[in-house]
Amino acid sequence: MINVTYSGNYQDILTDDKKRTLKSIHEKLYAKTGEGNDYVGWLDWPSGLSEDFLNGIKDTATQIREKADVLIVIGIGGSYLGAKAVIEALQPHFEKNPNFEVLFAGHQVSGPYLKQLMSYVDDKEVALNVISKSGTTTEPALAFRFLQQYMKDRYGKEAESRIFVTTDAEKGALLTLAEEKGYKRFVVPDDVGGRYSVFTAVGLLPIAAAGFELNQLIQGAKDAEDELKSFNPGDNPAIRYGTIRHHLYEQGYTNEVLATFEPKLSFVQEWWKQLFGESEGKEHKGIFPISVVYTTDLHSLGQYIQDGKRNLLESFLVVDEADEDLEVFEAENNADQLNYLAGLSLHEFNLTAYKGVSEAHLSGGVPQIGVHVKKIDEYHLGYLLYFYMLSCAYSAYLLGINPFNQPGVEDYKTAIFKLLNKPGY
Amino acid sequence: MINVTYSGNYQDILTDDKKRTLKSIHEKLYAKTGEGNDYVGWLDWPSGLSEDFLNGIKDTATQIREKADVLIVIGIGGSYLGAKAVIEALQPHFEKNPNFEVLFAGHQVSGPYLKQLMSYVDDKEVALNVISKSGTTTEPALAFRFLQQYMKDRYGKEAESRIFVTTDAEKGALLTLAEEKGYKRFVVPDDVGGRYSVFTAVGLLPIAAAGFELNQLIQGAKDAEDELKSFNPGDNPAIRYGTIRHHLYEQGYTNEVLATFEPKLSFVQEWWKQLFGESEGKEHKGIFPISVVYTTDLHSLGQYIQDGKRNLLESFLVVDEADEDLEVFEAENNADQLNYLAGLSLHEFNLTAYKGVSEAHLSGGVPQIGVHVKKIDEYHLGYLLYFYMLSCAYSAYLLGINPFNQPGVEDYKTAIFKLLNKPGY
Repeated sequence: MINVTYSGNYQDILTDDKKRTLKSIHEKLYAKTGEGNDYVGWLDWPSGLSEDFLNGIKDTATQIREKADVLIVIGIGGSYLGAKAVIEALQPHFEKNPNFEVLFAGHQVSGPYLKQLMSYVDDKEVALNVISKSGTTTEPALAFRFLQQYMKDRYGKEAESRIFVTTDAEKGALLTLAEEKGYKRFVVPDDVGGRYSVFTAVGLLPIAAAGFELNQLIQGAKDAEDELKSFNPGDNPAIRYGTIRHHLYEQGYTNEVLATFEPKLSFVQEWWKQLFGESEGKEHKGIFPISVVYTTDLHSLGQYIQDGKRNLLESFLVVDEADEDLEVFEAENNADQLNYLAGLSLHEFNLTAYKGVSEAHLSGGVPQIGVHVKKIDEYHLGYLLYFYMLSCAYSAYLLGINPFNQPGVEDYKTAIFKLLNKPGY
Repeated sequence: MINVTYSGNYQDILTDDKKRTLKSIHEKLYAKTGEGNDYVGWLDWPSGLSEDFLNGIKDTATQIREKADVLIVIGIGGSYLGAKAVIEALQPHFEKNPNFEVLFAGHQVSGPYLKQLMSYVDDKEVALNVISKSGTTTEPALAFRFLQQYMKDRYGKEAESRIFVTTDAEKGALLTLAEEKGYKRFVVPDDVGGRYSVFTAVGLLPIAAAGFELNQLIQGAKDAEDELKSFNPGDNPAIRYGTIRHHLYEQGYTNEVLATFEPKLSFVQEWWKQLFGESEGKEHKGIFPISVVYTTDLHSLGQYIQDGKRNLLESFLVVDEADEDLEVFEAENNADQLNYLAGLSLHEFNLTAYKGVSEAHLSGGVPQIGVHVKKIDEYHLGYLLYFYMLSCAYSAYLLGINPFNQPGVEDYKTAIFKLLNKPGY
């Protein structure tokens, strides 16, 4: 379902030694005995999803769409990027959902943003989904403090039926509050970290509320789980992608530029940046994940990628089939000299541009990986996101890094809390 | 007006030798005798702008706003990033301009984008501003082929008074077409490259159409031109920023992460990425420019920045004063444990977060530069963009690179044109 191409010779990388290493990673991963094994719940999560659970999410999404025009999702990092990635990939560019909008908050701290958000929704019916395992992560907690008050002021007691909470099953500030107020609850599982949580309630409720097909999304993830679990390092695209990028890292390619020609995939790229950056960027190691949208960024970063410092590898996320498309028509005067393109569709243009760019950048000294997916819909997004999560586990383990923790994020939090005199710091 | 801070000791960098090098760069730059001197028109551009010219732009912007609800700006790279940066920084987050919108096209090749754009504007009155020096750059030319036809189908002969062209003064496909059709014209000057063109008609017409104050923007740029032209490497913030980042590059910090706490500045960051990436990324040299918005991306790339590969330098674009703001209020139950923040404004929170993050990342081995600007308005944006352009010239010349060309972008274009059988390739 995913095809991974490489500008070098993959068989050269796949030495017997590398195969043994990969085999041992594969075994530890699936036996859940590797480093960080408390957090590999995502691995067999899709196949473990019950119809009851999915129906519960879908029913709540339907209720939200019935009583509201706008769902504000409050979350940061892994608590919003998965949903945002899928929703942005699937919804149109303008007039997002004419009848129902999903907006985000608590993914930064911004007075203007929050004020303008509240003013924007003031003539619309509103529901909230606040997503936080602990309930005390500063940014979403701050946004929720303001928005919960907004809901109370606007709806009084009825606010309680418009607020939906996704949090820990057994403990934490948000759980306590939800129980006290009777907010409907969904669970952030213990064994799935934020950046691997798109197929849990964290991602699924906002995606369903936005009007997209959970069954298809989950079917894609399930098929990926099933098809990518075999140890076949020559063919398994997840192992290929993880192994190639790790090999290139060892050759000194320490920046990975993920390029796409589909502007709607820019939040899949943001999600990918968290996934790989937070999983691998430890112990002064790891590839720095960078994203570009082409052809846009060929006119900004293209010069550097062609001819700047040679520590870049480029991986393309290529969509083989277009959904909507336009065909270049013949113009009478040909003033713009584009008649040579007549008959070509814009999607075909992009596929050709991909070939040309890839060729030019390769000649410039930038090794090329292609990740090909058939099209952009729920099914293929489900497959793609699972594929990247699994690749990331292989890639990080190859680096000798636990893919499932993020110890470095405590440092800045501690520094901020000390400056703010937070109790206990 | 701009204050540049540095986590190291700037005086240590500013050796007599470095001062001599900087002096020679300064002299060549202002005498317009350095490499790429055909393209330093931007240097004294703000002070050279006549009132007549500005009034012409403003009058056209007024006409556009009178006859249209939407201006579609067609351009790519330097032909749209400057305007987009200023407009995004100044307009509200939701309900962009309730009465008048500026939208962009031709900055990629996307069937869904163009189709959805045309469908979105179908019940609105439309004007076009197509910006291209040659008129044959593929992406804007393609978008203009479709949108010109759309205008003709919709407005007939009247379309001609709704199309505004910004192109070369004397030659090119777009000039010829504009003369034939009688489209109103503005000039892309010969001696100002795309990424330095925000203060020419390229940037000014869309910014004025969006409803923002050109006089203030230009006053900021003029003051920057005036205040930053003195050779005073100890104090001149443009020389400081250029010199510090070049010094860090020489120490092995080859990725610069530009961070801001203001989500509205994300396109200033995109503009900055083109400016520095395209100016410096040559001859296998240059710092790779990366952007992050905090605190959002602390929850995705924060782990890597704290503890990944140590080739990162971080430069903060810090806004000292907020425009709109919210203050954290005391909550009765303190369920979220945030009462310790009561009385703090969200802007103050971000300024404290800046200090904490900067401290933590510095301890993690990431050198820190701060670029402080007083606030976000037309005046300060004008100042800031000029500051970055001038810094970039110093930084690239220090690297021994011509800041004003982009030879590497021909390679991918040639490769694509060959694959498409473009006549002449």
